[in-house]
Amino acid sequence: MKKVAILGSTGSIGLNTLDVIDNSLSSEFEVCGLAAKENLDLLCSQILKYRPEVACLVNEKKAGELREKLKDCEVEIFSGQEGLVRVAAHKEADIVVTAVVGAAGLIPTLEAIKRGKRIALANKETLVMAGEIVTREAEKSGSEILPVDSEHNAVFQCLQGRAPSEVKRIILTASGGPFRGQKDLSRITPKEALAHPTWKMGAKISIDSATLMNKGLEVIEACYLFGLSPAHISVLIHPQSIIHSMVEFADGSYLAQLGIADMRIPIAYALNYPHRLPNKLDELDLAKIGNLTFEEPDISRFPCLGLAYQAVEAGGTMPAVLNAANEVAVERFLKEKIDFLDIWKIVQEVMKRHKIKKGKMIEEVLAADVWAREEARKIVTLYSSEV
Amino acid sequence: MKKVAILGSTGSIGLNTLDVIDNSLSSEFEVCGLAAKENLDLLCSQILKYRPEVACLVNEKKAGELREKLKDCEVEIFSGQEGLVRVAAHKEADIVVTAVVGAAGLIPTLEAIKRGKRIALANKETLVMAGEIVTREAEKSGSEILPVDSEHNAVFQCLQGRAPSEVKRIILTASGGPFRGQKDLSRITPKEALAHPTWKMGAKISIDSATLMNKGLEVIEACYLFGLSPAHISVLIHPQSIIHSMVEFADGSYLAQLGIADMRIPIAYALNYPHRLPNKLDELDLAKIGNLTFEEPDISRFPCLGLAYQAVEAGGTMPAVLNAANEVAVERFLKEKIDFLDIWKIVQEVMKRHKIKKGKMIEEVLAADVWAREEARKIVTLYSSEV
Repeated sequence: MKKVAILGSTGSIGLNTLDVIDNSLSSEFEVCGLAAKENLDLLCSQILKYRPEVACLVNEKKAGELREKLKDCEVEIFSGQEGLVRVAAHKEADIVVTAVVGAAGLIPTLEAIKRGKRIALANKETLVMAGEIVTREAEKSGSEILPVDSEHNAVFQCLQGRAPSEVKRIILTASGGPFRGQKDLSRITPKEALAHPTWKMGAKISIDSATLMNKGLEVIEACYLFGLSPAHISVLIHPQSIIHSMVEFADGSYLAQLGIADMRIPIAYALNYPHRLPNKLDELDLAKIGNLTFEEPDISRFPCLGLAYQAVEAGGTMPAVLNAANEVAVERFLKEKIDFLDIWKIVQEVMKRHKIKKGKMIEEVLAADVWAREEARKIVTLYSSEV
Repeated sequence: MKKVAILGSTGSIGLNTLDVIDNSLSSEFEVCGLAAKENLDLLCSQILKYRPEVACLVNEKKAGELREKLKDCEVEIFSGQEGLVRVAAHKEADIVVTAVVGAAGLIPTLEAIKRGKRIALANKETLVMAGEIVTREAEKSGSEILPVDSEHNAVFQCLQGRAPSEVKRIILTASGGPFRGQKDLSRITPKEALAHPTWKMGAKISIDSATLMNKGLEVIEACYLFGLSPAHISVLIHPQSIIHSMVEFADGSYLAQLGIADMRIPIAYALNYPHRLPNKLDELDLAKIGNLTFEEPDISRFPCLGLAYQAVEAGGTMPAVLNAANEVAVERFLKEKIDFLDIWKIVQEVMKRHKIKKGKMIEEVLAADVWAREEARKIVTLYSSEV
């Protein structure tokens, strides 16, 4: 019996994780912790169903309501960022699924890592912001970090634990987003950018997918997760999203992981590793799909990808700065305050202004994050006033 | 330092093996044995270059000439089928590459297996004719059988040693041969059938590729090599031959091995396993290739594939009978004695007439092989007289 804590249980990855646990033929998982940002009703019903020992609702006011509702229930309910840490660090938890969105995921994930727990990692910011710190702590504690997002999970499956010396490069596939073939990107609206061709996702990640920043962040994650330099990580546009990623080995062999677009496959892999358990999901039918296509990404039209490479090559606090500036820019784009093409310009400008620190301490990283957001907001104001 | 004996050193796989050894950056291989069928000059120059301890030229008369030529050279030269066994069983050999063509490969391979040597298996007939015996002996002696042909090597790479219970199915890819899209197969000439779209191969295997019998034999091999029933092995047409084969796991994930069409990659893998060493071969460029396509095989137009499934389901001596009947039929087709579509009809007829034996003893298998050849020749005479 393995005990699982889920940070972000009311979101898409959280719900899929619970579905995997519900349908696990081995029934070897028990939910010991649940945490959500603000969806009181859904978290409440999850607590009543799974009876975890601890829970957290980040929103303080709603956490109070939840405590009132569940006062006869044997569950300890925390709130705030500190509450997330309490669930992540819960002593009973063997596996922590970190599916909260954004920078808020970093500290709780790090606390779980320090305690040697297995991490089913679905929070991008953890490695993007603090990859060096996170991997160092995981090495110290023996914590296994199993990536949940489809690309890194694919790479993890293909790598089979081989040493970096046997790997020529990792090839992250990318759908290319909704504007892959489009020449003029200047008048794109948020609505157009939110229409992702293959995966159903939240707003932030959909925009990141349209700018290719999402792939850029994945390049940064991959560097830390697999111990490779950015020169050993390529991006290949593959609009059908059937090959989730590939590894080219030293001997010229490629291994690729393929599958239907269903996050329950990588989630189940991360939970059950090293075992593969049967499930009842749809099968991939390659003959029916018929055709897989590939093309090089066009970095001149999607500069966010190039900026991400620059950030991880620069190292230190620069990836955290890229990430924070991008978050602010995307949020402003979604509110129609800036143009689609302003996103990369703002990120680039913030990066230019940043004085890199080594980022060996988490405080440095968090300070860089705060600084980059402020700086991005200042620049956004300039762009907004032009609109 | 690992010592390698090569059966079939003057053929395509043999030459590629020597090329891999010549260009091995680790230079950890030494050639201790070489064997060929009848190419005296090439074998002679190979012996002078690699200085093996033992060699064999199957052709007795030419072996005499070779002994004469190399009388001042410290090499023991054998001849005949027995000579192949002497090279395969040579006590110094750690790895035996079995690249002789046809049924002649079976006994030498089996003798090497009994001595616990690593087999780089490039002789299809070993597993097709005597899969059960061969795998039983390998289990006894601890001999590792590493498949060299691109499909099984791909599957071996994707399986990563996982138990059959974690495997939903193996998907062997097939180029589909030169007549994939062609409706009328009745007037095909040997010349047309020899024009394989993606791999350069010998005459027999080219015809087998055109009838899909080659894929059928691979299905039989895969059953024994990976311990799976034929129901767990599929064939998928993939004309570009970039994905060399795939494994679908119990959890819905697929792993695929991809690469350029160069036999040196699987040969090097079999020699170096579990390591992957760098080489100087061309790189695969998926963006340049652009497009990978897939379709179901049409068994009604290519009945040889269906016959192979029937043979392995029937088990015992039936796969050996299928193989022997096919060899005779292909040879007759190449001599323009029968039509392309007579090949499967002859194989089917011989299979119908066969009374299956369990095939637990190698003598039973060899007897079935002889019987099937005779029977096929009788039937061929009927067909030939009609032409």
